[in-house]
Amino acid sequence: MEVVKIKELFRNTEQYLDKEVTVGGWIRSIRDSKTFGFIVISDGSFFEPLQVVYGEKLENFQEITKQNVGAALIVKGTLVATPNAKQPFEIQAACVEIEGVSAPDYPLQKKRHSFEYLRTISHLRPRTNTFQAVFRIRSLCAYAIHSFFQERGFVYVHTPIITGSDAEGAGEMFQVTTLDMENVPMAEGKIDYSKDFFGKETNLTVSGQLNGETFAQAFGNIYTFGPTFRAENSNTTRHAAEFWMIEPEIAFADLDDNMDLAEDMLKYVIRYVLEHAPEEMNFFNSFVDKGLIERLNNVMNSDFERITYTKAIELLEEVNDRFEYKVHWGSDLQTEHERYLTEELYKKPVFVTDYPIEIKAFYMKQNSDGKTVAAMDCLVPGIGEIIGGSQREDDLNKLVARMKETGLSEEEYQFYLDLRKYGSTRHAGYGLGFERCIMYLTGMGNIRDVIPFPRTTGNADL
Amino acid sequence: MEVVKIKELFRNTEQYLDKEVTVGGWIRSIRDSKTFGFIVISDGSFFEPLQVVYGEKLENFQEITKQNVGAALIVKGTLVATPNAKQPFEIQAACVEIEGVSAPDYPLQKKRHSFEYLRTISHLRPRTNTFQAVFRIRSLCAYAIHSFFQERGFVYVHTPIITGSDAEGAGEMFQVTTLDMENVPMAEGKIDYSKDFFGKETNLTVSGQLNGETFAQAFGNIYTFGPTFRAENSNTTRHAAEFWMIEPEIAFADLDDNMDLAEDMLKYVIRYVLEHAPEEMNFFNSFVDKGLIERLNNVMNSDFERITYTKAIELLEEVNDRFEYKVHWGSDLQTEHERYLTEELYKKPVFVTDYPIEIKAFYMKQNSDGKTVAAMDCLVPGIGEIIGGSQREDDLNKLVARMKETGLSEEEYQFYLDLRKYGSTRHAGYGLGFERCIMYLTGMGNIRDVIPFPRTTGNADL
Repeated sequence: MEVVKIKELFRNTEQYLDKEVTVGGWIRSIRDSKTFGFIVISDGSFFEPLQVVYGEKLENFQEITKQNVGAALIVKGTLVATPNAKQPFEIQAACVEIEGVSAPDYPLQKKRHSFEYLRTISHLRPRTNTFQAVFRIRSLCAYAIHSFFQERGFVYVHTPIITGSDAEGAGEMFQVTTLDMENVPMAEGKIDYSKDFFGKETNLTVSGQLNGETFAQAFGNIYTFGPTFRAENSNTTRHAAEFWMIEPEIAFADLDDNMDLAEDMLKYVIRYVLEHAPEEMNFFNSFVDKGLIERLNNVMNSDFERITYTKAIELLEEVNDRFEYKVHWGSDLQTEHERYLTEELYKKPVFVTDYPIEIKAFYMKQNSDGKTVAAMDCLVPGIGEIIGGSQREDDLNKLVARMKETGLSEEEYQFYLDLRKYGSTRHAGYGLGFERCIMYLTGMGNIRDVIPFPRTTGNADL
Repeated sequence: MEVVKIKELFRNTEQYLDKEVTVGGWIRSIRDSKTFGFIVISDGSFFEPLQVVYGEKLENFQEITKQNVGAALIVKGTLVATPNAKQPFEIQAACVEIEGVSAPDYPLQKKRHSFEYLRTISHLRPRTNTFQAVFRIRSLCAYAIHSFFQERGFVYVHTPIITGSDAEGAGEMFQVTTLDMENVPMAEGKIDYSKDFFGKETNLTVSGQLNGETFAQAFGNIYTFGPTFRAENSNTTRHAAEFWMIEPEIAFADLDDNMDLAEDMLKYVIRYVLEHAPEEMNFFNSFVDKGLIERLNNVMNSDFERITYTKAIELLEEVNDRFEYKVHWGSDLQTEHERYLTEELYKKPVFVTDYPIEIKAFYMKQNSDGKTVAAMDCLVPGIGEIIGGSQREDDLNKLVARMKETGLSEEEYQFYLDLRKYGSTRHAGYGLGFERCIMYLTGMGNIRDVIPFPRTTGNADL
């Protein structure tokens, strides 16, 4: 079918003005007087809809007037400038074909619906203004991330979803099995996983980092971008059981290189969405999070602050009475502390580095002070932590010792130790939660509203 | 750290010639005479390695000569043209820093290893020539696919990995659970899934299509690109339990539009990898699959043939004696039939369309002949089927009737039926198995060798 997209009409208007065009879209609103009517249609290609004017000369005029919101139309007509109207142009219809009617009980009538209600119709909510904008930003942001890394020669690696190891021992995991749950095979009093599909117990991945490191030691610079899972029973606005994560890993690189990369990436992504979706970003700025664009511009134009954890604790202790959770050297930072640093003190993104070894993962590089590791968290105004990463321990002996201290099995991690045995390099990496990033870019406050079909405790609809 | 990538030296040589550069990489080979030596290093950025010449003036000359294959080095020196040598230039080292030694038992000594052996060291095989090439093509191909769709305004949708429905009832699925397998909770003689994480039985997705359709009816044109799963006990060179799939879906579009899109996409991807990885593609053409590049060029420059299933059966029946499986109208096409059509008869890609309704999925659009559906399979020389798709049934009553015939529950698919109730449109889509595509582009014969960490029956290593 020869249809032109509404985005194309808006972006290259001159080319189409006063010419005949054919558009396919869905009715957003429809009204008529006796002899003519107006229809506003959206085809999902662009944030702004298109106005169609139709008159009684159309042989199916009566039929058109009876259409409901949500019906699909194919409109052929002339694109005409409307200099005195709100919209820049409209179509004067020569033909309006009803592609698919919309039943009168269509749930998305022209009125405001709560996000809570829209979550119950996840198959229809992408037709609303807000979710058109959210999911278009999500798509653009994903592509911006790919472009950023590909332009820099990074190799995209698909790390496995089903895994036999539990990565950093982090968090609750989902089990993956083909065993008959009603009749689980047992051997010597234990589950007989030799009968399971993979011949052992398997789970859904919580991180691709360790696999990613093996590729970084072959390709130098790599990134992952895939789904990860947490079976945590936390019913918050920031946690989902299934979410996407980006994990770059860079060889011949240290913590400074890692921070440079993270800073460049965030600025690139912000610039990309502001440039490629100005209408959507203005919508969020006006209706979802006033001040959003100013905040993003500020991030884009700042040199991110870089302070050590020890310095951060000093700064926080000066105002400890403001906090619900008092800080001291050795305590983890809570959101209230992170937001104080980034929103009040520095008013821009802040990297906090060199955390106490006890509160960070076993694979982080031990600093020469014997008590901190070369970790980094990136805190941004409005959210707090958005990125966490570190330089990795590249010394085989130190890594083995740390694994013993934390009770990890050398045997299970032999592949990881091999990387330190055969051509170990300084290397570093970080993780960016994709949904956290979308929330940050759009100002949306609930992770359920930035995932097409969110999975949370008790919810796996569609 | 300030290191320059070897790819940069090859692509912008003039800029670096006779200047000091610093490179970080891993030893591919090393040899020395008494007063000087040669090292070939790779940094994973480029298919060609770099030669380093070092002399006895270096204070750690003896230490360098003792390094093994696989060791990591940081080399500082002058880039010098070598017009009489095989390689275009080399580095004359002023300084060679040992970043990480390689133990003498390094499994990748400079000799040929079988793919079978390399599969047992999936954390090291990306350091070999073949897997450097495979996984760089994989990365480029993924990006080409994103670029193709993004340039055309398609919205990228992350359809869910964990799902409560079984899509088209296709194939064996992996169950996802947090229930205690040693003590599965029962209620009234059945497993009590109300106690499971999502409050119901859940599985890993086999296709994002139905979810994708909901977004196509909102955005017009969308695509998915994510992992999918089959718990099939098939130990072949073409099946994996975990693989990635691309599924575009287009509204206001019919089967012809669908074929146009698939044809454009394949040509785009082939052109992209030939342009962006000529060294890798030449390697595959020389050492893995002679004739590869000619075949891909042929595909890129052909108009794909388009024939109906009925016509295909006529053509195949003429030579039925050649086939192990004899065809007749109503039978499914086997690989031998597909390859005859595409390799011998047409010698180019062939779309076969309009299959018997009985051998295709319930959601495919019924043709007016009452016995076929608007399906399409794309067959390519060397592989057979690489893409399968269809126009979708957009008529609510026909769809409901077909679901009844095939025993599907209307209740479970209510969201899918809603799409036909509220503004139904002609729409179509297809699925491309990403690994199948990589095999096609590289000539690699086993799916285990195009997936970073393959998952097959009995195998979920790392």
